[in-house]
Amino acid sequence: MDAFIKHRFWVETKEGKFLGDGRIELLELIEKLGSINKAAAEMKMAYRKAWGLCQSMNEHSSRPLIIQQTGGKRGGGTQVTEDGKRAIKVYRELQKNFEMYTASQSDLLKTL
Amino acid sequence: MDAFIKHRFWVETKEGKFLGDGRIELLELIEKLGSINKAAAEMKMAYRKAWGLCQSMNEHSSRPLIIQQTGGKRGGGTQVTEDGKRAIKVYRELQKNFEMYTASQSDLLKTL
Repeated sequence: MDAFIKHRFWVETKEGKFLGDGRIELLELIEKLGSINKAAAEMKMAYRKAWGLCQSMNEHSSRPLIIQQTGGKRGGGTQVTEDGKRAIKVYRELQKNFEMYTASQSDLLKTL
Repeated sequence: MDAFIKHRFWVETKEGKFLGDGRIELLELIEKLGSINKAAAEMKMAYRKAWGLCQSMNEHSSRPLIIQQTGGKRGGGTQVTEDGKRAIKVYRELQKNFEMYTASQSDLLKTL
């Protein structure tokens, strides 16, 4: 049989979802583009949704992952902090590890 | 930070979902109770839904995982075949492996 394993992972705290594929992609785009607005546009995501995800990530963490530098929601630049960069790195490492592990388990399906 | 990894896995073929938590629980209950109807009731699932899941599993596999022994949908007994039992065993082994692996990865979150 031509079966294969699919997998998903994400990171939670007691307060709920903290990091997932979409949130990490958003962080990476903010780091690259310096703007939540531009990052949201790149992901075809509403600004309000992207802003909410940034708020959620910041609230889960003892130190913020994203800092908006000036007042207005769409004004000024946005930076990913060192903690934010570490979150990206750790998540991408986890992702690579899970992909390799999942591939290593596919032999189990051969008996199906 | 008190973060933890959540994960899901399931098994697909090119035709879509083949095995997942609900499907395997259903198979186990059919094996135990000898009836799709009783298994569905135990899972508080509509009979029609359970029957559809059984059909789907059988269609994905070259040999059936579940055999209904007599005519009417609710009549007669239902058996999980040797292939069905093997699917349960493989899935539960994968599940145990993924749980151990996920636990082994949680140290990566300590730097967050």
